[in-house]
Amino acid sequence: MRPIDFTHDPAARSWLVSANQPGSDFPIQNLPFGVFRRAGSAEPWRGGVALGDRVIDLGLLVQAGCLPPAAVEAAALAARPQLNDFIALGPSAWQALRHALFALFALPNTPATIPAAALLEQSEVEHALPLRIGDYSDFYTSIHHALNIGKLFGIPDVSPNFRWLPIAYHGRVSSIGVSGQAVRRPRGQLRPPGAETPVHAPCAWLDYELELGLVVGAANPLGEPVPIGRAEEHLFGICLLNDWSARDIQGWEMAPLGPFLAKNFATTVSPWIVTLEALAPYRCAFERAPGEPAPLPHLIDDAQRAQGGFDIRLSVALESAARRAAGLGAVPLTETSFRHQYWTPAQMLTHHTEGGCNLQVGDLLGSGTISGPTAAEAGAMMELTQAGRQPLQLPGAQGDTESRGFLADGDAVIFRGWCEASGRARIGFGECRGTVLPAL
Amino acid sequence: MRPIDFTHDPAARSWLVSANQPGSDFPIQNLPFGVFRRAGSAEPWRGGVALGDRVIDLGLLVQAGCLPPAAVEAAALAARPQLNDFIALGPSAWQALRHALFALFALPNTPATIPAAALLEQSEVEHALPLRIGDYSDFYTSIHHALNIGKLFGIPDVSPNFRWLPIAYHGRVSSIGVSGQAVRRPRGQLRPPGAETPVHAPCAWLDYELELGLVVGAANPLGEPVPIGRAEEHLFGICLLNDWSARDIQGWEMAPLGPFLAKNFATTVSPWIVTLEALAPYRCAFERAPGEPAPLPHLIDDAQRAQGGFDIRLSVALESAARRAAGLGAVPLTETSFRHQYWTPAQMLTHHTEGGCNLQVGDLLGSGTISGPTAAEAGAMMELTQAGRQPLQLPGAQGDTESRGFLADGDAVIFRGWCEASGRARIGFGECRGTVLPAL
Repeated sequence: MRPIDFTHDPAARSWLVSANQPGSDFPIQNLPFGVFRRAGSAEPWRGGVALGDRVIDLGLLVQAGCLPPAAVEAAALAARPQLNDFIALGPSAWQALRHALFALFALPNTPATIPAAALLEQSEVEHALPLRIGDYSDFYTSIHHALNIGKLFGIPDVSPNFRWLPIAYHGRVSSIGVSGQAVRRPRGQLRPPGAETPVHAPCAWLDYELELGLVVGAANPLGEPVPIGRAEEHLFGICLLNDWSARDIQGWEMAPLGPFLAKNFATTVSPWIVTLEALAPYRCAFERAPGEPAPLPHLIDDAQRAQGGFDIRLSVALESAARRAAGLGAVPLTETSFRHQYWTPAQMLTHHTEGGCNLQVGDLLGSGTISGPTAAEAGAMMELTQAGRQPLQLPGAQGDTESRGFLADGDAVIFRGWCEASGRARIGFGECRGTVLPAL
Repeated sequence: MRPIDFTHDPAARSWLVSANQPGSDFPIQNLPFGVFRRAGSAEPWRGGVALGDRVIDLGLLVQAGCLPPAAVEAAALAARPQLNDFIALGPSAWQALRHALFALFALPNTPATIPAAALLEQSEVEHALPLRIGDYSDFYTSIHHALNIGKLFGIPDVSPNFRWLPIAYHGRVSSIGVSGQAVRRPRGQLRPPGAETPVHAPCAWLDYELELGLVVGAANPLGEPVPIGRAEEHLFGICLLNDWSARDIQGWEMAPLGPFLAKNFATTVSPWIVTLEALAPYRCAFERAPGEPAPLPHLIDDAQRAQGGFDIRLSVALESAARRAAGLGAVPLTETSFRHQYWTPAQMLTHHTEGGCNLQVGDLLGSGTISGPTAAEAGAMMELTQAGRQPLQLPGAQGDTESRGFLADGDAVIFRGWCEASGRARIGFGECRGTVLPAL
């Protein structure tokens, strides 16, 4: 677990007043990393840190000599168009930069030494994928999600291995995009109910999956597993992740080797990676019902039992094209927390390496759909609508409504994530947004 | 389909006499690409072409001014430590370099203009992975393999989707290595027969899978499928591929999302990529039994029907540590051909992109295990030994034998591939070798 130090002091304030606004995702205690440039420009992509309503341009801080020597190398590498080289420096460098930024932007310091150009408005920038991702693996670690999906098919319990290992499969790297991604509805093979043979048609059951993305912060050599007690040293941070899913394509293709085209047309992540350091005040025990079996010894230790989880709150909202045109905004669909997950990030990472698989800096692990214990906390439309049988009603203008069994063309799906508790500073993830384009 | 031109003339001979030896994998008609350096040296990795018992150092050819202007850029990029930039030049550049090398090394030309240092002995070089692989996908396209595996579990036919789409799943990139790889036996969760709960133990059912690797030669943008008639323009070449598999781990982990740790501890490819150009004389119709359904229209065209397949012959041999120590060499286990595969490479590629998934230059597609129609043509030990129930006997020194249900520590698995037919030049793939290390 990361220690809680002065950078978590909830009384700390920044001289950048927008960082002190109640409800801001990016107070001085957060300092998440991303890659940006001025929107619509041909400027080079570069690394920055979110603070209040601004982006700190790390390269300009280095050029202006604002940073102490211990943080200069880290800031220079974090200013590159991909964060991998910075992340590869390791936890002491991450912390040195975090401490330096905190000191620079927290009161009683003042803006005197910061070049004005180093603080861009978030509203004027666009983002790129902040990582060079070598491999992407997607887990399946919410027992509530697994039970909900099973019930739709008349299966009363999770598969026998669920309680013993964090189930996962390999995902597709090339189609991972950043918030704002326009997602083309896939065409594919699907077998209509009752039909003998499949057809090739646009996906009719397009869905999202509410997930977190775990960013690998340190490599392990091929053949050398990471013990559970060291697993969190191999994690850099966490972002939001939408594992777009074509349920009808998935239903036809996935036996016996798992999902393929149903998932690989798009995955969207949020632009900001929140560090494990920033999340230290929100560690919690993972919630397991009484009677669940103890994990095998290599997947558990005291730290995992006591605070292997994270109390990250998550929401999903849907903005239809009609609501957007009418200026009505998005409709909330779900709110839940990552604390309900069955397996912790450290357990996922240790399991991933237990056969010797080598993880590399910048690899991405999806948490799997995050669904809480109640029906309203479901992290996929498949669950919320009972596979489309109980469509959601979206209120429209002048009393009319729209109905959704699955996603329609033009729908924007918006995830948000945040940590909040009395006496602790709010730590937000910003948003992860994607919009559905019609099939070709 | 690639046209057959003068570089396939079976009467062509090289002034490099080893290229003309009967049975050579690398005659003047082949010219496969790889990456090498002098074994044990700290020389930079660089691209080369196999000819007879030599490696042509492409960078030195460029420096010495041996190549015509049309081939210089291609050769310079192919000389880099990864072939991606060369491959990205496209088919006309691949052909220009092929034609130039053919002209330079075929009789009646002579060695006069070639610097001696540009021809290294293959026995004095070592190889690196020749590609920067963005994503690796592994297919499941042999109906004989699928039927053999099903029978082991009492399942009489392939899954209902098998005859309609080339089934695939995403694989792990980071653990792909080149021939010569030492593969650490993985530990993992497995559930002993009859047990209620799993244990964490070394894999006892370690296996290989005989596959070909298809190298993507041109990208498609996200959201834009590749039509079947253009699919082969997106393929650069083919290598041998061993999809090492931990069957006991696989059996416990794979429901419902497919194989994960059972596959991601290692994948081994051969050092040389044979171009589709070189394989043009060995195109064939794919073999399907009468009564098999016609593919959906987007997966078939006349070219696929007539010669979508490749008659690539393949063999597996096993060299135990005891046989190696006794100087006895490897025992042949299997010989088959890729012509028995149910789905063609073009169909795999088009299917992969039909939902919009973007492939990138250097991506690797595994063919799936290649098993022919008879029991002796099985491409995995799981099939040859009936899941270990009918162990193979390996003859040893002085009349003793060793028994193998699955792979033992110290075993070397050796794949070879070649095309051979009367009146055509032999086109070989060299070998793909990997050796099993004991579990940690």
